[in-house]
Amino acid sequence: METAKKNKTKAKCAVDSYLEGRTNIINSALNRYLPPVNTKPTIIHKAMRYSLFSGGKRLRPVLCLAAAEACGGSINNAMPLACAVECIHTYSLIHDDLPAMDNDDFRRGRPTNHKVFGEGIAILAGDALLTIAFEIASKYKPTSRYPTAMIIKEIASAAGSKKLIAGQVCDIQAEGKKVSASHLQYIHECKTAALLQCALRLGGMSANCTPKQLKSLTSFGYYIGLAFQVIDDILDVTQTTEVLGKTAGKDEKSGKATYPSILGLEKSYKIAERLTTSAFESIEPFKNKGHFLRLLAKYLLKRSK
Amino acid sequence: METAKKNKTKAKCAVDSYLEGRTNIINSALNRYLPPVNTKPTIIHKAMRYSLFSGGKRLRPVLCLAAAEACGGSINNAMPLACAVECIHTYSLIHDDLPAMDNDDFRRGRPTNHKVFGEGIAILAGDALLTIAFEIASKYKPTSRYPTAMIIKEIASAAGSKKLIAGQVCDIQAEGKKVSASHLQYIHECKTAALLQCALRLGGMSANCTPKQLKSLTSFGYYIGLAFQVIDDILDVTQTTEVLGKTAGKDEKSGKATYPSILGLEKSYKIAERLTTSAFESIEPFKNKGHFLRLLAKYLLKRSK
Repeated sequence: METAKKNKTKAKCAVDSYLEGRTNIINSALNRYLPPVNTKPTIIHKAMRYSLFSGGKRLRPVLCLAAAEACGGSINNAMPLACAVECIHTYSLIHDDLPAMDNDDFRRGRPTNHKVFGEGIAILAGDALLTIAFEIASKYKPTSRYPTAMIIKEIASAAGSKKLIAGQVCDIQAEGKKVSASHLQYIHECKTAALLQCALRLGGMSANCTPKQLKSLTSFGYYIGLAFQVIDDILDVTQTTEVLGKTAGKDEKSGKATYPSILGLEKSYKIAERLTTSAFESIEPFKNKGHFLRLLAKYLLKRSK
Repeated sequence: METAKKNKTKAKCAVDSYLEGRTNIINSALNRYLPPVNTKPTIIHKAMRYSLFSGGKRLRPVLCLAAAEACGGSINNAMPLACAVECIHTYSLIHDDLPAMDNDDFRRGRPTNHKVFGEGIAILAGDALLTIAFEIASKYKPTSRYPTAMIIKEIASAAGSKKLIAGQVCDIQAEGKKVSASHLQYIHECKTAALLQCALRLGGMSANCTPKQLKSLTSFGYYIGLAFQVIDDILDVTQTTEVLGKTAGKDEKSGKATYPSILGLEKSYKIAERLTTSAFESIEPFKNKGHFLRLLAKYLLKRSK
């Protein structure tokens, strides 16, 4: 028992220090890619940086880099793509938090962008982060299988009106309505899985991965994307606002459809576990090289915020 | 006199029928590039199309195609770039009209996007048009001098936080304040000239233009961009809401800095004329091939809406 506990702590430390290292290099790359804060007009660059550097987990870029390595590539060529995805993720949070959408006052323990800079600037800061994502992505050095045009299409599709934006549209429309488990899964696929999947695929592409490897990453991304959202919904019920850094219990209050509200907490957690197992199976072909991807999948399942 | 009048009418007919022909092929290209209106979730695709197909002048894509031809290229490879720029222009109008920004109820003679679909969907429709712009641009077939990465960077820069978005930021911040003529010019450069210039440069790039040709187009775009905005401000004072299709007299009411408000109507028109002359000079090297670019510059100066 003592040894098992020690091993668990050791694994936790391993993933923590891995994440810390990755977050640091991602943060400095983002800092390099963004215009300096004193660039004219300063307010927009302040607003962009306020949300981009607010202590996010950097999950998507971390997964992107890990996918590149799992395919035998270096992280250098994956970095612009990893950062592009993070800019898109941040823009989507700023816009989702707006009064006309989810109307959230807190995010990552701090007032939301529009609370600090006003609605107009918050909308524009989101627009600017979405726009710069493509500029950053264009710094990618094309590999033989994946030209720049394919990379741009990949990002635009995942962030577009049939995926990321569709998720937010359905989320708004479903509020206060009875939603089936299958429709909820569609929302989660769009809202969360699409961009996570995109991050992993881009990492593979930057390493000139084989079509078979790309298929494994796609499937892995799908499963951890869904698991991630199920866990998110569970944490909204079980955690406090302080731990989450965003308003807890909000889903129930706003009548938002979630796995716990449809299936209950216990069954929801079982589903998240099953999805994580499927994620593991997807990357079996990577063998040892999939070590960090597996570590990350497990970390996402066990996270408390 | 009679002959002069006839020639003028003939020239007007020539530009009208040229514009009509171009608008038709641009509209059908846009229609092909956009997801069908019944694509799930339908509301977002309806909202995107509502603003994209609302009878806009298609000025930017027309200029893009004309630039390609002036450089000896075909319009085929310019088309995705022309349409990408139009999507970006439309997204910027949707977001600028929002209550948190200019709070406009009418655009092109119809209720603005948020008036029809609500603020949340309008924000997302803008986001979706900005996103799809890059997907459409990625359909461009790279020429030897201008790889896809350069095209994406070109678009993202013009639409980004130092140009198009900067213009809207400054516009918001300048409202009700005293603004110098030089700061107003900076706002116009960002808000209007940058994207017009980008449209022209992209047209040239799609035709694999020489660096010298690109310089001419850049300068031409700068001058007609500024002239366009000066005329826009003049029309806001001199025309009715019915003719404009958007609320007339709004600049003065909201205390917005404009050329007429700073320099008066007559002097403003003189400036627009001078800018148009400079635009003509910029494209002298194109000789006969610059015919339609000249025609368009003149049309923009003389327009009544």
